[in-house]
Amino acid sequence: MAGNTFGRVFRVTTFGESHGQGVGAVIEGCPSRISLSSEDFVRDMARRRPGRPGIASPRKEMDRVEILSGVFEGLTTGVPIVLFIQNKDADSTPYKPLERLFRPGHADYAYFKKYGHFDYKGGGRYSARETAARVAAGVVAGKILAPLGLKVMAYTIELGGIKAENIDLGFVEESPFFCPDSKVTKKMEEVMKKAQEEGDSLGGIAEIRVTGCPAGLGEPVFDKLDAELAKAIMSIGTVKGVEIGEGFEAARLKGSENNDPITPKGFGRNRSGGILGGISNGDDILLRAAMKPIPSIGKEQDTVDKEGQAAKITFTGRHDTSPIPRIIPVLEAMVRIVLADHYLRSKTMTSCIERKSLDNEQS
Amino acid sequence: MAGNTFGRVFRVTTFGESHGQGVGAVIEGCPSRISLSSEDFVRDMARRRPGRPGIASPRKEMDRVEILSGVFEGLTTGVPIVLFIQNKDADSTPYKPLERLFRPGHADYAYFKKYGHFDYKGGGRYSARETAARVAAGVVAGKILAPLGLKVMAYTIELGGIKAENIDLGFVEESPFFCPDSKVTKKMEEVMKKAQEEGDSLGGIAEIRVTGCPAGLGEPVFDKLDAELAKAIMSIGTVKGVEIGEGFEAARLKGSENNDPITPKGFGRNRSGGILGGISNGDDILLRAAMKPIPSIGKEQDTVDKEGQAAKITFTGRHDTSPIPRIIPVLEAMVRIVLADHYLRSKTMTSCIERKSLDNEQS
Amino acid sequence: MAGNTFGRVFRVTTFGESHGQGVGAVIEGCPSRISLSSEDFVRDMARRRPGRPGIASPRKEMDRVEILSGVFEGLTTGVPIVLFIQNKDADSTPYKPLERLFRPGHADYAYFKKYGHFDYKGGGRYSARETAARVAAGVVAGKILAPLGLKVMAYTIELGGIKAENIDLGFVEESPFFCPDSKVTKKMEEVMKKAQEEGDSLGGIAEIRVTGCPAGLGEPVFDKLDAELAKAIMSIGTVKGVEIGEGFEAARLKGSENNDPITPKGFGRNRSGGILGGISNGDDILLRAAMKPIPSIGKEQDTVDKEGQAAKITFTGRHDTSPIPRIIPVLEAMVRIVLADHYLRSKTMTSCIERKSLDNEQS
Amino acid sequence: MAGNTFGRVFRVTTFGESHGQGVGAVIEGCPSRISLSSEDFVRDMARRRPGRPGIASPRKEMDRVEILSGVFEGLTTGVPIVLFIQNKDADSTPYKPLERLFRPGHADYAYFKKYGHFDYKGGGRYSARETAARVAAGVVAGKILAPLGLKVMAYTIELGGIKAENIDLGFVEESPFFCPDSKVTKKMEEVMKKAQEEGDSLGGIAEIRVTGCPAGLGEPVFDKLDAELAKAIMSIGTVKGVEIGEGFEAARLKGSENNDPITPKGFGRNRSGGILGGISNGDDILLRAAMKPIPSIGKEQDTVDKEGQAAKITFTGRHDTSPIPRIIPVLEAMVRIVLADHYLRSKTMTSCIERKSLDNEQS
Repeated sequence: MAGNTFGRVFRVTTFGESHGQGVGAVIEGCPSRISLSSEDFVRDMARRRPGRPGIASPRKEMDRVEILSGVFEGLTTGVPIVLFIQNKDADSTPYKPLERLFRPGHADYAYFKKYGHFDYKGGGRYSARETAARVAAGVVAGKILAPLGLKVMAYTIELGGIKAENIDLGFVEESPFFCPDSKVTKKMEEVMKKAQEEGDSLGGIAEIRVTGCPAGLGEPVFDKLDAELAKAIMSIGTVKGVEIGEGFEAARLKGSENNDPITPKGFGRNRSGGILGGISNGDDILLRAAMKPIPSIGKEQDTVDKEGQAAKITFTGRHDTSPIPRIIPVLEAMVRIVLADHYLRSKTMTSCIERKSLDNEQS
Repeated sequence: MAGNTFGRVFRVTTFGESHGQGVGAVIEGCPSRISLSSEDFVRDMARRRPGRPGIASPRKEMDRVEILSGVFEGLTTGVPIVLFIQNKDADSTPYKPLERLFRPGHADYAYFKKYGHFDYKGGGRYSARETAARVAAGVVAGKILAPLGLKVMAYTIELGGIKAENIDLGFVEESPFFCPDSKVTKKMEEVMKKAQEEGDSLGGIAEIRVTGCPAGLGEPVFDKLDAELAKAIMSIGTVKGVEIGEGFEAARLKGSENNDPITPKGFGRNRSGGILGGISNGDDILLRAAMKPIPSIGKEQDTVDKEGQAAKITFTGRHDTSPIPRIIPVLEAMVRIVLADHYLRSKTMTSCIERKSLDNEQS
Repeated sequence: MAGNTFGRVFRVTTFGESHGQGVGAVIEGCPSRISLSSEDFVRDMARRRPGRPGIASPRKEMDRVEILSGVFEGLTTGVPIVLFIQNKDADSTPYKPLERLFRPGHADYAYFKKYGHFDYKGGGRYSARETAARVAAGVVAGKILAPLGLKVMAYTIELGGIKAENIDLGFVEESPFFCPDSKVTKKMEEVMKKAQEEGDSLGGIAEIRVTGCPAGLGEPVFDKLDAELAKAIMSIGTVKGVEIGEGFEAARLKGSENNDPITPKGFGRNRSGGILGGISNGDDILLRAAMKPIPSIGKEQDTVDKEGQAAKITFTGRHDTSPIPRIIPVLEAMVRIVLADHYLRSKTMTSCIERKSLDNEQS
Repeated sequence: MAGNTFGRVFRVTTFGESHGQGVGAVIEGCPSRISLSSEDFVRDMARRRPGRPGIASPRKEMDRVEILSGVFEGLTTGVPIVLFIQNKDADSTPYKPLERLFRPGHADYAYFKKYGHFDYKGGGRYSARETAARVAAGVVAGKILAPLGLKVMAYTIELGGIKAENIDLGFVEESPFFCPDSKVTKKMEEVMKKAQEEGDSLGGIAEIRVTGCPAGLGEPVFDKLDAELAKAIMSIGTVKGVEIGEGFEAARLKGSENNDPITPKGFGRNRSGGILGGISNGDDILLRAAMKPIPSIGKEQDTVDKEGQAAKITFTGRHDTSPIPRIIPVLEAMVRIVLADHYLRSKTMTSCIERKSLDNEQS
């Protein structure tokens, strides 16, 4: 039973493979009468594309998002929106030598055990290419959230062991790494370059901050907002850990240190990360995600072939050195998708009184 | 739109409140012809109950699980199983003074914003009492997994800053903290006692290890096994962070360090935590969860009342000092629920060849 | 994968068996702050109970609905509502002789093939007893619909071949058969009596009329309002056919006869049954359901036992002679459940303009 | 909350509009390793296309099904399959005069009330064009069912009041109306011609017969096989009634007439239509569907415009005279989709013993 759909009301299904005709997303549950055109996708697709100064993947795609259905005369109609992004520069020749080998750190082996085959052409469905569809869907989610004044911003706080220390969110879009600390740009460039030269790769940590989120989103006890966010973020292939608010550090605090006092002006601090009991409390939502290093590396590795015979494998194809920075808009997209879903869900559950207040925040 | 159901095939819906008639779970999708009786629940309900030496919550409930439906002549029938656990010792008197106050660190404020009310009697639905229903449902999940030889074990690796260093899984059930390091029992007792004396509380970190999991569980791209586990664990009220395999440390490793080599005898190491591309790879699954300190503390805290007026709040009711150790069986239950769901899901998606091998592992 | 849940936002899961502890329903997605108490269920549970003059099943149950969770101080809270109805008069002794025989017209054989067992004690899960839980859930659905001015009424238009001809909806509740034609009461009593004497049973046809339904409910293309109603009604064990508007007769009309003209004052007639393209159009919704005769009859029938050996079977237990009249409140309940679900669903999909108009109709 | 997805395990989502880029379907949950190519769709797409002798819609489309994802080297991979059918001959000029008018019998008015707009270009999403995507998805469902020996066949039993009397299933594919009675071809042609000349349209009734269905499919109590089939069929825009087995006639039979005796060789007759208690019993499944006449007619009709002003409307565009025969492959497709979904669902619920027997029937 497949799991390619995320969301209950705002439902995103992605499809497509890295070296097939393209990737895309079907969005069900988007309200009608929202303006939507191909132009809306340009900025975020560009942010995800390789090519930020100094850290590019050589693969170049314009990644133009076509709207195959769901929009009539410039407005959404309430029926499924299909977004499609053609694969234009998908040379699978370099993958031919890997046809029979399981790539360490990739999903080849697990897919083979599950489905009886794996896609040696760059991973097919389990390529990071699939995240282009997520970014596109996130743009539509953002259209639902914008009238609330809600904003989602992700940024790099650690790359290859180099940590951001001075957080200047105004610098994020200028940084080649979406990093809010201008002083570490050079260090990050150096570790990236060094890893490339060694035929190796790096991981990193990103923080996601949501401002303007109304109180009341999240559906306990299982679809708590933090639980859904954790799933959404962990569903990105490269992510190995998720924290909310103080996260793992909260385990080392005492209750008196970790509880956020409540004052007539709001919460006295934000150790909770903006979510209490799985419901947004109106404060900023704060998350962190840990990304593992890209598994495709130039160094020779041990593996086996489909018959289980020992083999050596070395990657020569085009690969990023780190999931950072290209994962940043993907993180934002997933958070937007969760919030749009829960904003629409809240319309069905909220008590009459409260629903009006949510609506007021929108108008 | 409510979120009280977990799972797609093995579906668990919990219900009930801390100071109402009881809590329970409805399980849909459990195959027929599995033996099930109230006795099956005794062990895990006891492990969750307060009263392990030295760290008890004073609230005493026998927590006997009644089977209200779904079992006929000792065997499951394939129809919904309803498990019910009466509240027998639910004195809500101590909560009366809190009737108008939002408890810091609890969900009161967020629930009030969402639903237009909150349950001052110990949290009602958002009390940790709800996790008793999860543990009961986890027992049924375990019955599905047992024939696979699959085992789930959770244990404390850190409590109030005290870390386990020598991992002896054989000691876990003897430890009052489900901690695998016998040498830290005393230190943990000391920090717990000190926190109690200070009217404060502690958090901790647990590790969950799954052995015997067949390769092939998990449904990319969104219902990846690690994504579902992250959601399941984060849906426990007290959890603020989840890691798989190396987790946040993976962000600091290079690809050559983090990739697990594949050999004819299996994986050369297990940094992935047993999941690749969201699918189990046959290796042990390794997770860690960070729990915040219990928010109910004896120290006076700042808060507001329903009208937004500043107030002071002090807890005098019965409260645990730390989510550890009672959360340990809850963590195990949630992992079992995810795995039972995905095991049953795999029966619909797996290719013919592979399905047979999964079945063989069961027979 | 089980199918005991109906609805997407207002979700009803029924549970329980005819000769177990009781039957019940879990309702997820009911908005908070709606008044609800056991008293609310009395009227409809009584209408479903055997004992209308002259046509009673001898089984007597008070069928009091207990609220196990989801209500706090008289108001729904937004968390799962659990309704439970104890089995008090469930004597399974008469079923003992049937232990090894498949009852013709019942689900025994099919359940045995599917689940590897069947419940000889009156059908267990597949007893009509399960519909008591539906009626209870329908009461909660009605609470959501009432502020809209929406009303659902079912009534018998045919019983054992006797057709109602003069429709006087004011007479329905007075009729022992919920039949709107006072002139056929006697004839219906006669055919019922005759069938009883012959040890046989009868079927019938009911009509369901919904007044006050706002335009805009239904979610094409698969969850069309008529499609969902058809499913809801066909999911009642005894129903073998469903029609909307002109139904099968529409197949014999020409387009010019079947299309409803639109005028500035509304539709010129209602052959569509109030639904166009799967969406309510504001007119009355009209449905008909055909019920087969009760399969438990006094006449001897041919069957086989579990081993496939030929056998004779004769029913001596307590059985209704016809699904009419007890099915009438069940039909109403299922229609209410569908409408409450779609009313709540409409809040997420409707365009902003339209949503306000729906809300106005409610306020 | 949208309803464009059908199925729980084998999940079909259709998308697209009549005069947009095309229509299509996303299929989730199809097992891997099934051969699939564009050629597989040719036969059924041709059967749905206008152009059977004498009864054509003038709109000509090759309706070639492109596979955008989910197939690798000729085999399904287990990931979403996307099928796309371009609109090649979609001239919306004739619709321009209708831009402001609600077409009687169509969904325009209801869509406008729900979504705040309607698609005057041939209905957009609610055009019968959408059923092309259903037929394509049904082909994939058929691939799952074929190894079971299961066959689905729909045929016309009534058209414009002309009834088939001699059922010769061998003649169905030869008949321009998919009608099993060769003797009524001429009469049907005559009533069709007459209706066309009058600028009017006709409805009809189809029967669907499933042979080779294993016992055990269907998931009580709400997802009963007959309930799901009723929904699937009623979700086709033109359908106004659904019957199973004896259907409405069962309401006039006595229990002793309607019950199917069970013998060591199987059921003694098949009044149930092959489904008992919502579960297939191994006998042929028999359904009937009533279709209303096409609402687009040449005769002048009363309607209103968007502002509610009275207006006259006359259709001059290309329209079929009756849903028959083009609906026949759509009915088959929907039944196949339900059965494929329930076949895969049965793998998760069936008891171990029974599952093996189902598998044996497949192998």
